[in-house]
Amino acid sequence: MPLIRIELEYDGTDFVGWQAQPNGPSVQTALERALKDVTEEDIRVHGSGRTDAGVHAAGQVAHFETGSGIPPEKFAVALNTKLPGGISVLRSEQAPPEFHSRFSAKWKWYRYKIYNAPGRSPLRARYSNWIPGVLDRAAMAQAAPLFEGEHDFYSFCAEPDRQEDTRRTIFVSRLRQDGDMLIYDCVGSGFLYNMVRVLSGTLLAVGRGALTGVEIAGIERRRSRDLRCTTLPALGLCLMRVGYEPWTHETMLSTTGVNECLP
Amino acid sequence: MPLIRIELEYDGTDFVGWQAQPNGPSVQTALERALKDVTEEDIRVHGSGRTDAGVHAAGQVAHFETGSGIPPEKFAVALNTKLPGGISVLRSEQAPPEFHSRFSAKWKWYRYKIYNAPGRSPLRARYSNWIPGVLDRAAMAQAAPLFEGEHDFYSFCAEPDRQEDTRRTIFVSRLRQDGDMLIYDCVGSGFLYNMVRVLSGTLLAVGRGALTGVEIAGIERRRSRDLRCTTLPALGLCLMRVGYEPWTHETMLSTTGVNECLP
Repeated sequence: MPLIRIELEYDGTDFVGWQAQPNGPSVQTALERALKDVTEEDIRVHGSGRTDAGVHAAGQVAHFETGSGIPPEKFAVALNTKLPGGISVLRSEQAPPEFHSRFSAKWKWYRYKIYNAPGRSPLRARYSNWIPGVLDRAAMAQAAPLFEGEHDFYSFCAEPDRQEDTRRTIFVSRLRQDGDMLIYDCVGSGFLYNMVRVLSGTLLAVGRGALTGVEIAGIERRRSRDLRCTTLPALGLCLMRVGYEPWTHETMLSTTGVNECLP
Repeated sequence: MPLIRIELEYDGTDFVGWQAQPNGPSVQTALERALKDVTEEDIRVHGSGRTDAGVHAAGQVAHFETGSGIPPEKFAVALNTKLPGGISVLRSEQAPPEFHSRFSAKWKWYRYKIYNAPGRSPLRARYSNWIPGVLDRAAMAQAAPLFEGEHDFYSFCAEPDRQEDTRRTIFVSRLRQDGDMLIYDCVGSGFLYNMVRVLSGTLLAVGRGALTGVEIAGIERRRSRDLRCTTLPALGLCLMRVGYEPWTHETMLSTTGVNECLP
């Protein structure tokens, strides 16, 4: 049966996350329901990874098999007529039989946004985490690249004992500011549970003066959860893109947004 | 009694507009309720203008009188503890007795956003108007400045016969693109009913090839509503700022966002 690859965008606010859950609507369930409507088949959708409740996606990738005979590139439009407003399939295409949205992925790009201003901003509240109070933004920007390279991220995730190996490779870890919006971009070969939200919380601790860049290496060595590295709320996080070719310097330069992080 | 000037931001999605209405929550009513909670006074709030249902504001200005004795600059924090999540008071200060948020205003800056991409974008849907299909963006950008200067905007508003004088002066009318987002900025001394939404619709008609820049002057002369100048939906519109000093070239250069429109 043909394998279809889809790229999708969603506003995570009203979903319990990617994965089907008994306690509310999930992105996966919404997609499978829409596929049932469109193809009359019971189709299982596989995502590149599970985004948590409230996390947004600008470029999540998923795949499924279908015997429906619908042209692969038509699925985007067909599914969008059935999906709730919070989810949109940006494109669909046939993938080679060996493609797997999760196991074939070479990198993922996440973005965490902190809105650092005295007043709450209703127009930014849905897609960023409001942090009033003065932050040392320069120190945060300086500390962010410390996570680049191969590191043991045991201390920088939730439930580290759930995984055997907590080493991961981060290609890009940069924080820049756009007015009062602090934009943290993190590209890696793979991520531990809640890792980007903990890294963002670690940078926030640096911004508040609770942690120095030098201490970050020490925390890594200690391999224990540091209380200063809190997990920031989901609403500031967005899965920007999933890559299926190796990450290179050229990929970085051609990836809109990430290259703006370069000094 | 002291006169307090407030600047506020709101997400218009869940409001029936600025003005109190019987059919749902208005921004004005929410402010007056919050003021009652804070001061125990029945206070009437006056805005710089009425934004319609669904229109957003990043910098609406309003004023009110109070005998409460609360320090003027404390109203922002006090009101925010009482206001619904969709409204935030950015700052509050005492204004001179002759100040009136509406009659003292020298200019208003509105922004209309069109998201021009094949697929619906859930992450942009709340604050922009999605227009799929190819648009001649260069023609739109070229036509936008035709509205600058003093013109009779009879043909470019809803219900033109409600006003005696339909001449208005537009200081800035520019359209630029940021990726697939078309951003139309319009600064003027005053606006007719639905005028920015009709001007945006006129530029959209230019983008679709239904109207040429040359024809715009003809429409103005005819003084009748042209069917091609449709009123675009409210969700793409945002009141960016209200100015109380004369608009100058220096104001333009120092106004973030508007100066990006300059060629």
